[in-house]
Amino acid sequence: MAIQPPLREILNFDKGDGLVTAIAQDAASGEVLMVASMNPEALERTLESGEAVYWSRSRRRLWHKGEESGNVQRVREVLVDCDGDAVLLKVEQTGGAACHTGRRSCFFHRLTAAGVEITSEPLFDPREVYGAKG
Amino acid sequence: MAIQPPLREILNFDKGDGLVTAIAQDAASGEVLMVASMNPEALERTLESGEAVYWSRSRRRLWHKGEESGNVQRVREVLVDCDGDAVLLKVEQTGGAACHTGRRSCFFHRLTAAGVEITSEPLFDPREVYGAKG
Repeated sequence: MAIQPPLREILNFDKGDGLVTAIAQDAASGEVLMVASMNPEALERTLESGEAVYWSRSRRRLWHKGEESGNVQRVREVLVDCDGDAVLLKVEQTGGAACHTGRRSCFFHRLTAAGVEITSEPLFDPREVYGAKG
Repeated sequence: MAIQPPLREILNFDKGDGLVTAIAQDAASGEVLMVASMNPEALERTLESGEAVYWSRSRRRLWHKGEESGNVQRVREVLVDCDGDAVLLKVEQTGGAACHTGRRSCFFHRLTAAGVEITSEPLFDPREVYGAKG
């Protein structure tokens, strides 16, 4: 499925050099899990498959979230912001952890006046899921 | 306040050409309100003042959110993601609306199989708050 009007009209991939920002939020708890990028094909595949597919800027390829760990994100809702350069995915995170460190959310460093606090512990050992490179 | 270690060590402005992605989330409801960018100075001012300050890419200057509308964001918590290129602000959105259209959240377009739905109506007339350019 190509992105057709009216989607084409409310999405703006040009501002981000062909990418939009994609935020994944837990559909049940509202916890923000991670932020990544999508090119048009990633968004198309997400809409088609019902599972989050991002564009990996580091690997320069499509990245079906969970392709290695099995922890896919089932997409319940897709929202687009007012200027069309960001999408918000409300997801069910299978396996419970969105972060490659094994934590539920990637946002686990809290900035405080005293410095940085770690707010959560891993749910699993990433080395067992991703191998040594995890 | 300059960004010192350990903040400097967990933040990565280089990946985004000097910017990190900044997501504002309602601290009480969990609703994702908007996404913007921050350079180091924007983050410093946010931490110092307790109100969200972003880097406006379109205007190429610091942007104290609410400077025109009065609808500032009081920052309750600042979290950083695992690779340091995104921050999550948990905020109290004064005036109730983060979006320049007068809506609570900028994410008010829902993508569906049938097309695009508008999920919320403005809380105020943006022309009255921002003038004719709103």
